[in-house]
Amino acid sequence: MTNPADSPYVRACRRLSVPHTPVWFMRQAGRSLPEYRALRGTGSILDAIADPAIAAEVTMQPVRRYGVDAAILFSDIVVPVHAIGFGIDVVPGRGPVVAEPFRDAADLSRLRDLSPETDLPYVLETVDRVVAELGGTPLIGFAGAPFTVASYLIEGGPSREFTKVKALMHSQPDLWVALMERLTAGSIAFLRAQVEHGASALQLFDSWAGFLSPSEYECFALPATTRIMEETADLGVPRTLFGVGTGELLSLMAQSGAEVVGVDWRVPIDEARRRIGPGLAVQGNLDPALTFASHEVLVDATRRVLESAGTAPGHIFNLGHGVLPTTNPDALQVVVDLVHGEGRAGVLQ
Amino acid sequence: MTNPADSPYVRACRRLSVPHTPVWFMRQAGRSLPEYRALRGTGSILDAIADPAIAAEVTMQPVRRYGVDAAILFSDIVVPVHAIGFGIDVVPGRGPVVAEPFRDAADLSRLRDLSPETDLPYVLETVDRVVAELGGTPLIGFAGAPFTVASYLIEGGPSREFTKVKALMHSQPDLWVALMERLTAGSIAFLRAQVEHGASALQLFDSWAGFLSPSEYECFALPATTRIMEETADLGVPRTLFGVGTGELLSLMAQSGAEVVGVDWRVPIDEARRRIGPGLAVQGNLDPALTFASHEVLVDATRRVLESAGTAPGHIFNLGHGVLPTTNPDALQVVVDLVHGEGRAGVLQ
Repeated sequence: MTNPADSPYVRACRRLSVPHTPVWFMRQAGRSLPEYRALRGTGSILDAIADPAIAAEVTMQPVRRYGVDAAILFSDIVVPVHAIGFGIDVVPGRGPVVAEPFRDAADLSRLRDLSPETDLPYVLETVDRVVAELGGTPLIGFAGAPFTVASYLIEGGPSREFTKVKALMHSQPDLWVALMERLTAGSIAFLRAQVEHGASALQLFDSWAGFLSPSEYECFALPATTRIMEETADLGVPRTLFGVGTGELLSLMAQSGAEVVGVDWRVPIDEARRRIGPGLAVQGNLDPALTFASHEVLVDATRRVLESAGTAPGHIFNLGHGVLPTTNPDALQVVVDLVHGEGRAGVLQ
Repeated sequence: MTNPADSPYVRACRRLSVPHTPVWFMRQAGRSLPEYRALRGTGSILDAIADPAIAAEVTMQPVRRYGVDAAILFSDIVVPVHAIGFGIDVVPGRGPVVAEPFRDAADLSRLRDLSPETDLPYVLETVDRVVAELGGTPLIGFAGAPFTVASYLIEGGPSREFTKVKALMHSQPDLWVALMERLTAGSIAFLRAQVEHGASALQLFDSWAGFLSPSEYECFALPATTRIMEETADLGVPRTLFGVGTGELLSLMAQSGAEVVGVDWRVPIDEARRRIGPGLAVQGNLDPALTFASHEVLVDATRRVLESAGTAPGHIFNLGHGVLPTTNPDALQVVVDLVHGEGRAGVLQ
């Protein structure tokens, strides 16, 4: 059996040569797959995540169906704060919703230390099961970056404006730092536990970082992310940092210590490589909306990403954001096969 | 009485010297003002827009309250397509909603030619009334850019993914061009009529252009915008082109023929100036979320925008997006006074 550390995905993260360009999809587990809907029924997604038999199966489904180069855990970035009892639910069609949003210093006590083995035993059992089944295919563990998790806790749910989180970070910087420290410690513990149970790589989702200006990102979000990278470096697995709409932030994100920076569809891969510099790998960046276009359009768009990635090592193909719930899985299969057949970044000729 | 063409706002659009940095706010008319809510009650916003007495008064309210350097018509970018009977409403808290979205070529017939004098007499009467009352303060007329208007018609309402509009533009380019041509013709007619009735400047809102990749913007959105600029150039008023999240698009937007490019809060003004080049003015770009932060934070952030704008002529202060409905008007007054007192772009010392 191949070692996941020698897999095309992990090698591409390390900017090593690969037999083919690796590809996986954010949100590949769940949502859009009919076999997922058949398995899960209509209960809460948090209940499904808490059942290792279901969660492991859902994690494996896209690996079997598509032949993608990595599995990503079927979970959600709010699972750790849910587990410590902050009071958060995931509402279908809406996203995370907090009954009593984070408002002041008293709310810090609602964010106790996370002990992954006792607070999230079901996630770690899912990791165990998936790693045993995956063989040489790597599992990507993940967590939400502190800014993005905090945005849910403070706004009370998905936001388009981020007024409350921005008001808090600017007007009460000490409280913001204290909140970031709590969330950072939890993310570090959770990420470390996933690797200790066999995850071969990590991704930190700072999904909404792109709503911050560069100076806000540098001051209020990057320090927590950098600390997470520092405190997971000894694990020896590649770490990817991803957010949406981060064109202005890529050079800052590249300073975090991550080995890979993920980019959305707004910045072509060649330009993203220039912004993050030669020492990091890049992940992306097909527009998920184009999986709804015609076959020809999808093929052309996939090829443009591969052309933009060029031949230099260090490209992991992905969408520019998560798979949308109504995506036709056949479209993703077209992408996987095309990337495997035509990707050239780091592929020995 | 001063001529509006010599006002600080119009002079700044033309990169001429000004007595003070001009400032106005997108969405300054309506929503956040208590005097607006007292006047309008709870009816549909489209009904209020269709009443020239109300619409003119709402347009004037922020000019009187804040002393901003320009009025912007109290209206909505979907007013023209509503007027020709496409079947669109503006739902409070949600935005424009289309009962039967645009799907195929047969829907083109639902977009007949716009005759502003007969289809939108109430808007033009509002312009007449406002211009008569404004004196030397300029009125900014506006329209939605064809891509952004089309996104509502095709998606059926506000979208976070733009899957339908992207699928259509890529997969049915001939239909897309035909749709753009209809909307472009309507925008040109509407903008011209507003200037003929006394508007001293125009702004084209391509609010959601930032969801397009640069190549998509260049191929599918910019041609219509460029045509609008060509067909309004003879009017002799400055035209501003604005969208949110357009960091990657600014150099393309600068090629449209507009005299001013508006930017959101993600790109500092000095960097925006570099991207759009020395021949254009720039508008922006205080993060509207920061009007919810403390007084000190708001003052600091406003000063940072002014510092970034520097001393070269051609800066119009604005928010990076529209005033949010729950904004405290006192915060905007702080901004106006600070900009008037401390702005230095093009201000003769």
